[in-house]
Amino acid sequence: MGTITVGFHLLFLIPTIALHAHASSQEAHLTKFLSSKRSRSNISNKIGDPTSFHGGSFLGIASSPRIDGYPSSYHIALKAADKISALPGQPEGVDFDQYGGYVTVDGHNGRALFYYFVESPGNPVTKPLLLWLNGGPGCLSLGFGAMRELGPFRVNRDNQTLTRNNHAWNNVANVVFLESPAGVGFSYSNTSSDYDKMGDPLTAQDTYAFLVNWLDRFPEYKARALYIAGESYAGHYVPQLAATILAHNNNNNNNNNNNTGVILNLKGIFVGNPLLDDAKEERGHHEYLWNHGVISDEVWAEIAGHCNFSDDSVYGDRCYKAITRSQYESEDIDIYNIYAPTCITDNNGSYYSSSQLPGYDTCGEVPTMAYLNLPAVQRAFHARETKWSDCKIFVDFKDSPDSMVPTLKWLIDHGLPVWLFSGDLDSRCPITSTRHAIRDLNLSVTEPWRPWTAGHEIGGYVQQYKGGFAFATVRGAGHTIPTFQPERALILLQSFLKGILPPYEKAK
Amino acid sequence: MGTITVGFHLLFLIPTIALHAHASSQEAHLTKFLSSKRSRSNISNKIGDPTSFHGGSFLGIASSPRIDGYPSSYHIALKAADKISALPGQPEGVDFDQYGGYVTVDGHNGRALFYYFVESPGNPVTKPLLLWLNGGPGCLSLGFGAMRELGPFRVNRDNQTLTRNNHAWNNVANVVFLESPAGVGFSYSNTSSDYDKMGDPLTAQDTYAFLVNWLDRFPEYKARALYIAGESYAGHYVPQLAATILAHNNNNNNNNNNNTGVILNLKGIFVGNPLLDDAKEERGHHEYLWNHGVISDEVWAEIAGHCNFSDDSVYGDRCYKAITRSQYESEDIDIYNIYAPTCITDNNGSYYSSSQLPGYDTCGEVPTMAYLNLPAVQRAFHARETKWSDCKIFVDFKDSPDSMVPTLKWLIDHGLPVWLFSGDLDSRCPITSTRHAIRDLNLSVTEPWRPWTAGHEIGGYVQQYKGGFAFATVRGAGHTIPTFQPERALILLQSFLKGILPPYEKAK
Repeated sequence: MGTITVGFHLLFLIPTIALHAHASSQEAHLTKFLSSKRSRSNISNKIGDPTSFHGGSFLGIASSPRIDGYPSSYHIALKAADKISALPGQPEGVDFDQYGGYVTVDGHNGRALFYYFVESPGNPVTKPLLLWLNGGPGCLSLGFGAMRELGPFRVNRDNQTLTRNNHAWNNVANVVFLESPAGVGFSYSNTSSDYDKMGDPLTAQDTYAFLVNWLDRFPEYKARALYIAGESYAGHYVPQLAATILAHNNNNNNNNNNNTGVILNLKGIFVGNPLLDDAKEERGHHEYLWNHGVISDEVWAEIAGHCNFSDDSVYGDRCYKAITRSQYESEDIDIYNIYAPTCITDNNGSYYSSSQLPGYDTCGEVPTMAYLNLPAVQRAFHARETKWSDCKIFVDFKDSPDSMVPTLKWLIDHGLPVWLFSGDLDSRCPITSTRHAIRDLNLSVTEPWRPWTAGHEIGGYVQQYKGGFAFATVRGAGHTIPTFQPERALILLQSFLKGILPPYEKAK
Repeated sequence: MGTITVGFHLLFLIPTIALHAHASSQEAHLTKFLSSKRSRSNISNKIGDPTSFHGGSFLGIASSPRIDGYPSSYHIALKAADKISALPGQPEGVDFDQYGGYVTVDGHNGRALFYYFVESPGNPVTKPLLLWLNGGPGCLSLGFGAMRELGPFRVNRDNQTLTRNNHAWNNVANVVFLESPAGVGFSYSNTSSDYDKMGDPLTAQDTYAFLVNWLDRFPEYKARALYIAGESYAGHYVPQLAATILAHNNNNNNNNNNNTGVILNLKGIFVGNPLLDDAKEERGHHEYLWNHGVISDEVWAEIAGHCNFSDDSVYGDRCYKAITRSQYESEDIDIYNIYAPTCITDNNGSYYSSSQLPGYDTCGEVPTMAYLNLPAVQRAFHARETKWSDCKIFVDFKDSPDSMVPTLKWLIDHGLPVWLFSGDLDSRCPITSTRHAIRDLNLSVTEPWRPWTAGHEIGGYVQQYKGGFAFATVRGAGHTIPTFQPERALILLQSFLKGILPPYEKAK
């Protein structure tokens, strides 16, 4: 089972340094993972049965008074302690409040999740609350989401100072970045066997507990509109968390014996380049690679002719060989943005981008990781001092359903707005895979496919379906959309928060 | 039949200015053209039967002593007259010779083709001769090929001065840019009814006549290795011209009564984003648009389910409607590079690019056309003073076969190296269409698909087939490959001229 975790990590971001050397083995792991899942029997939650996220043991966790054992009043003091006076090297004129700290999600085992919270400049009370989750499973919401995607700062090449990200999402929302699940980034458990139990159910349970407790610490947000966003493997996390919230809300509304009185004001979910369905992901991945000129005619013909992506059967030898060959043929490019330049390291350790892409630094991970590992920076965030990088490797990530389609359908049926979006240069969880999964939702179209604009350019395309479901693309974006197209990503977020499709302005 | 020509023009380049306003009607014309071709019967050369390019009346044209009626000796004087002393505004230090002028291809009707010839700097006698043909049919090899793609100069924003193109193809070859057929650019006929007869056969005949006569003017190139290159609709021109040359060579070798003694030393053809097969083009175009997130699931499902691209049947109503809808959905982007910025014109006539793409000026057509319309520039080129822009519209372009696959197969069977290449961001004659056509060639693979590199990046992918056939992609390039990726295009050309696949260097 050791292959599973490495395969999962692929779903977020492979390091851009020495990309070429690693891509092959990592991709091979994903294949083995998907293939091995297909060959396993007795998978408890094979198709992402949403009832397991609202009818089972989860309801127990919030029925205890508070998971961390603190009385509510104590949280006010915790909030003050979490306030970040300033991050080392931050620019002048920071006009919003920042917080960082831990929320215990299991007092008995000593399991606590680290968060970084940035309020909106100006008048934060008028803005909604947005929880951001990176994927993996096991990748850093602070190191990636906050510092390289949609947070307020970017780390400079000096590894020590920050500049402002003009298209940060806290322009329009108060954003919580959560290091999740325990074991990832600064988050931890004092009971190391917790890591062996980690999987989709425990992640959803812990994240729900985090939210309930965090809102005690920030009570002014209790009634605020709440949105959950994420990308990649968060295509599992976000719908599962949403289902958990709706189930708890329903239970608590029913005023039964377990009533904790907690109602989370969940208003919608927003997930980019999500992993939704293992089989559709696999099919769409190779289909995308062929259509974008990355893999050969011969290999694609083998895959199209000999892989059965429509049922639960185990891949045959011929299919398996063709998929392996496809991975070999695509190992030289960055499969998370097939047109991105690469970050080149010289023998003396210096590094540079192979070419320039406006607004994007392909070597940006290097200063980010250096900065976040500075002791002064970790202290400023109120984090435990830790040496970390990339993504946490879970030896066995439990109960990862093959398909999130039933869960999405359940959420839509329960009236929750669901928006999915695709950066169209990502081949890992590509637009083709997402489209195949959306087709399985079998929703009727209420507003047909059309372009949307950002400035004088097409920002992408969008379509609205019955039940508040929407699918949008972000043109020219890879897997981590706000990194590659920060302005377009922010426009799309604003539209989602308003509940109206992004704008279209006919060019002259 | 008036729709045909406009449809054809689409195959080259629509003006980037006010792109949005025009795309719809132009694309609709292409559909009508393809659809109307399907509905016509008794098409003489439906599948590009290559025998019509080597067994028929063409042999007659070169059996007359010389088409233009001049004795060979006179051409020496013509060459001196064609020498361009300097182009207005050219930079200091131009270290190669340039020529411009006319070659008569039909003395009786007064039909003459304009050429611009740039020798290679350094030692031109060691370099091959390369003829470049733009597509359309009817688009300018001077205005596009020479000045915006692979020629030695680019026009500056002042509309008056030039800068050197570091990746010009005359770095490695002596390049002839031909304005073809008569009616296009500076080329003309004194018999205006010639334009009504224009089509694939007459274009091939005239281009052959041009070459024979041009070599009398530049006799030092008579024995030189000759290559023919082009793009887009030159997917028709180049193979047809090659077949014509091989047929004449064979006839003249046979020393029969018609022997003119002319043997052209043709060594290979090199065609980028070619139109090869109407049905495959149509299928690949929509398939590409769906996989790149441009058109909707619903429209692609209709096209995939109800269009029969595998035979000669007329499109049904349902297919026709879906194709029309696909054009509507894709009208807002530049279908010749789906990720390119656009050139925006303000009401006061000023213009600017919607965003920057390194190395590419999306507004570059404006200064180019202004410069080439300056009387002093036209005089320097030894051209007749003409006001022109974009592409010539032929009311009825004759005998355009549905498929070039038989012609390509004939050339390969006759031992001619054939290389096709695809800029992978072009949706007009996209990689998918070219791949479907190549599959029809049914060639065995001799060197499997692999990446090739340019600097520290993947320049594209390449595969070699039996019989000297190769297919390569150019990563990150639109329809006019040398415009978007000048360095990669030059590397690929060098490889073609050497007859070895482009290099691959494993990144660190």
